[in-house]
Amino acid sequence: MGRPSDARDKILSAARRLIAQRGYTALGIAEICTTAGVPKGSFYHFFESKQALALTVVEEHWAGQRRQWTEVLTSERPPLRRLRDLFEATEAVQRSGQADNGSVVGCLFANLALELSTQAEDVRHRLQEIFDAQIDMIEKVVAEALEHGDTAPTVDTRDAARSIVAQLEGQVLFAKLLNDPGQIEALWRNCLALLGATDHDGT
Amino acid sequence: MGRPSDARDKILSAARRLIAQRGYTALGIAEICTTAGVPKGSFYHFFESKQALALTVVEEHWAGQRRQWTEVLTSERPPLRRLRDLFEATEAVQRSGQADNGSVVGCLFANLALELSTQAEDVRHRLQEIFDAQIDMIEKVVAEALEHGDTAPTVDTRDAARSIVAQLEGQVLFAKLLNDPGQIEALWRNCLALLGATDHDGT
Repeated sequence: MGRPSDARDKILSAARRLIAQRGYTALGIAEICTTAGVPKGSFYHFFESKQALALTVVEEHWAGQRRQWTEVLTSERPPLRRLRDLFEATEAVQRSGQADNGSVVGCLFANLALELSTQAEDVRHRLQEIFDAQIDMIEKVVAEALEHGDTAPTVDTRDAARSIVAQLEGQVLFAKLLNDPGQIEALWRNCLALLGATDHDGT
Repeated sequence: MGRPSDARDKILSAARRLIAQRGYTALGIAEICTTAGVPKGSFYHFFESKQALALTVVEEHWAGQRRQWTEVLTSERPPLRRLRDLFEATEAVQRSGQADNGSVVGCLFANLALELSTQAEDVRHRLQEIFDAQIDMIEKVVAEALEHGDTAPTVDTRDAARSIVAQLEGQVLFAKLLNDPGQIEALWRNCLALLGATDHDGT
């Protein structure tokens, strides 16, 4: 079975795929190991529990997504254009997930958040932090847009940022349900309306 | 075990509870029957399959919700006030779910939509129809508000309605994740911003 780190990677990759397909609750450690092609005994060598594994999957997914969000949201472009870039990146991620999996996978964090209301408290707590971090990142850009006079002067930046993330999750849900990443396109128009902004100069 | 219809009701009620707690995939027919306190053999007397059962749970939930949405959205009140009433009703439903279950249960349709991307096609298809029906109901009210001059004249009623439902699902997700129905309060402010409307005369 190669280097030990290979087995860990295989378990993580199998868990990612199985969670995307059927969620956390239906996940069994034996099945993860079978899918990963590693002996069941090796699971506990790398992970304390199924919850610890899920937490690692969440952490790795967030590391990648945070990198992308940071790159897009702190670019040199005008603030509203950066928001649009984020929505386009979100649509691209869902399109590529659809190409790889045959159907739109949606947002791992939302999928887990809706599933784990009363279970796996550590995962749930981490998801709260991740959504807060997303709202923080968007709020900074909205505040810049406000400062540049690109939004209505009355915009509450925190409220608007939370609202944009809620909207994003709702539209990704529709994209998943209809297996159509094109649903996400509405985000930009809605975001402009929400911010009382108009689409101008290159955005 | 009483009248046959009692057994059917018991199965449905157990399924509703188990789906709310852990979703569809993790649901087993044997467990449903044990929870319902009915012999396993009786399950197939009432339901063809687990998917048929889930479809009935969805149908009953929608029947109740549609009744409430219709009542609220076709009242004699001004159109924007009716939207606000709907958001308040949504928050009240989540508060009462929290009181009954110890935690915010979220939206059954969104929970299932996120879980069933590639399984249970009949349920998924029905969920698409239900979200479309919700968007239709909201669009009628937005069109009335537009006609009364209560929104920005440029509002695209379909887009706005879809956006309001997406926003509602996103905020209910936050309410569930944070176990705080108060999250839903932001819907009204966001809806006003989205429609380019202002809060006036009794709304």
